Amino acid sequence: MQNGRRKTRIVKIGNVPVGYPYPVSIQSMTNTDTKNVKATLTQIKELYHLGCQIVRVALPDIESAKAVKNIIAETPVPIIGDIHFDYRIAIESIKSGIHAIRINPGNIGSEEKVKAVAEAAGAASIPIRVGANTGSLAREFQLKKEESEEKYDKAERTAESLVKSALKQCEILEKYSFKNIKVSLKASDVLTTFLAYKKFASLTDYPLHLGVTEAGTNFRSSIKSSIGIGSLLMLGIGDTIRVSVTGSPLEEIKIAQTILESVGQREAAPEIISCPTCARTTTDIIGLVNKLEAYIESLKLKGLKFKPFTLAIMGCAVNGPGEAKEADLGIAGASGKFVLFKKGKLLPRSYTGEEAYSMLESEIKRYQIL
Amino acid sequence: MQNGRRKTRIVKIGNVPVGYPYPVSIQSMTNTDTKNVKATLTQIKELYHLGCQIVRVALPDIESAKAVKNIIAETPVPIIGDIHFDYRIAIESIKSGIHAIRINPGNIGSEEKVKAVAEAAGAASIPIRVGANTGSLAREFQLKKEESEEKYDKAERTAESLVKSALKQCEILEKYSFKNIKVSLKASDVLTTFLAYKKFASLTDYPLHLGVTEAGTNFRSSIKSSIGIGSLLMLGIGDTIRVSVTGSPLEEIKIAQTILESVGQREAAPEIISCPTCARTTTDIIGLVNKLEAYIESLKLKGLKFKPFTLAIMGCAVNGPGEAKEADLGIAGASGKFVLFKKGKLLPRSYTGEEAYSMLESEIKRYQIL
Repeated sequence: MQNGRRKTRIVKIGNVPVGYPYPVSIQSMTNTDTKNVKATLTQIKELYHLGCQIVRVALPDIESAKAVKNIIAETPVPIIGDIHFDYRIAIESIKSGIHAIRINPGNIGSEEKVKAVAEAAGAASIPIRVGANTGSLAREFQLKKEESEEKYDKAERTAESLVKSALKQCEILEKYSFKNIKVSLKASDVLTTFLAYKKFASLTDYPLHLGVTEAGTNFRSSIKSSIGIGSLLMLGIGDTIRVSVTGSPLEEIKIAQTILESVGQREAAPEIISCPTCARTTTDIIGLVNKLEAYIESLKLKGLKFKPFTLAIMGCAVNGPGEAKEADLGIAGASGKFVLFKKGKLLPRSYTGEEAYSMLESEIKRYQIL
Repeated sequence: MQNGRRKTRIVKIGNVPVGYPYPVSIQSMTNTDTKNVKATLTQIKELYHLGCQIVRVALPDIESAKAVKNIIAETPVPIIGDIHFDYRIAIESIKSGIHAIRINPGNIGSEEKVKAVAEAAGAASIPIRVGANTGSLAREFQLKKEESEEKYDKAERTAESLVKSALKQCEILEKYSFKNIKVSLKASDVLTTFLAYKKFASLTDYPLHLGVTEAGTNFRSSIKSSIGIGSLLMLGIGDTIRVSVTGSPLEEIKIAQTILESVGQREAAPEIISCPTCARTTTDIIGLVNKLEAYIESLKLKGLKFKPFTLAIMGCAVNGPGEAKEADLGIAGASGKFVLFKKGKLLPRSYTGEEAYSMLESEIKRYQIL
């Protein structure tokens, strides 16, 4: 990471340590009814299967906080309870053995109630995530609407509000000697998100939960989340991430993993380098790559795991041989056929598209972790 | 932009100025046979329709460089010729009236040949994009394979090579008093890309063409390109961008636009803020947002344009009312129904999903540019 990763305290969510120097972990959140233990556990297991390491469940009522006990009994990953408005739900979920809770001390009510939650979490030695969110800033931190129109100024001042709000939430807990804290500062605006985390990171050593909130559908969220989360990770900021998608939470995990791979926090297995094609392309590169990606996806959904390796699939002689030589298996188009490079060595004949594809399939199998 | 945008020289590609303080422009590249003028023009017009401002075409041979004359006669956007290996193609394309060329002086051959291209481009007053690419670095800039294994170190040293290679390419042209230059430094690795552009930006005032090269399919490229391009734009670096997708170039434009919107370089029209849903969600938010996005997409493909506005579609009372109040039209789920906010004002009744959707449709129409 650039200038190294930010040094932080460490919090432990179940068996997953969050903070420097531990790997940046992937979170998601179920969208089933938490009281429906079976449906929720099914989704948790699917998420785990794809690489999710921590799952958050919403606890909108006492019944959910009770039901979560049965989820915890069988979950393969630690569970965070997401609680708003009612401190009794937090207390109940701690009784149920929740691994961490996420609250906003600002909407939990009186200091007495916050104190009760902090004491219960302290006694159970579980962390609390606090965090500001532009959608629910306390009145004292809200910007007046007319104050700023210019986009960057507005982002900067909103970020300032998020930072102040999050600091205040930390202070409330610190007052009760509670420091087992993880922090988030979420905005649906990417620039605001970036500025808020950057500022907060410079002021405390709490580990950070990164995310762009309410980022939209798969398409839009993959872009907004990648910029927001990715740019912070490249600065060494961020200890656990959650990609927010209006859609299946399983998509969140795929995006999160690719973000971590892209910033060098995980090894891609495989990394596929493929060119955009142009007038130089005389072979069906697009078809080949799509078929390959679908094949790898199908293997991963079956639970197969792979060692890191790189495949380069390139259309022509401009960057083709260069990229192909760097890859574990490289394929470069050449006058309607393909030439192959294995570990940088050019194989002595040319191949049809079908032959090239079957070489790719067998190469992939070689990297499977048995 | 953070700390303001980087100050640069300006180059003019046809009628599109590239450099500070002009807006960051979107480029793409056709993947038709350039000699097929009709097919290439059709793709150029589709790209233009979606918001592409500059189109690059590959010119692998002299015939393509001749054919491009007929493309230039009818194109709605400026055309860049992409030339490798043969300087005569560059000269021929300049005769055809090309608006700019992209060459790698390193693979064009002797200095005499580079000089001939620089003189022809100078006489025609057209810019040259030069640029280093990890797939085609000259031998003198290539890293020895065993030199580095650690990912960040390797990225840093590869970035250094890209910068040196690009600087050398600039120097070759500068020797012939040619400074009408735009520069790219491309790697398929995001971290390398980020470090290379950041370094180069600090050393020269040439405008920069940003892109992560060979970024893969739609899914992978939207993540890699967003991190690479987005993080640089947030630092004020970058004057024109190209998202590379192994697929239809039309997808490149949609991703590029969303990147520019996300970093505040363009106003989204509309910006859709929508929550990931959770156990609190009692309404079909995912269905509503997907239907809405498909509807907007269909209008845009028909060529309709919209003024910037924000729609927030939220599942519950935690962040729902907050986000909804900030938006031009906000919808928040509440016990199986929806409440609506128009310009921050709560409307006095609740709505079914169908009613809410038709409110959204008519709101969208209000923002159409006629």
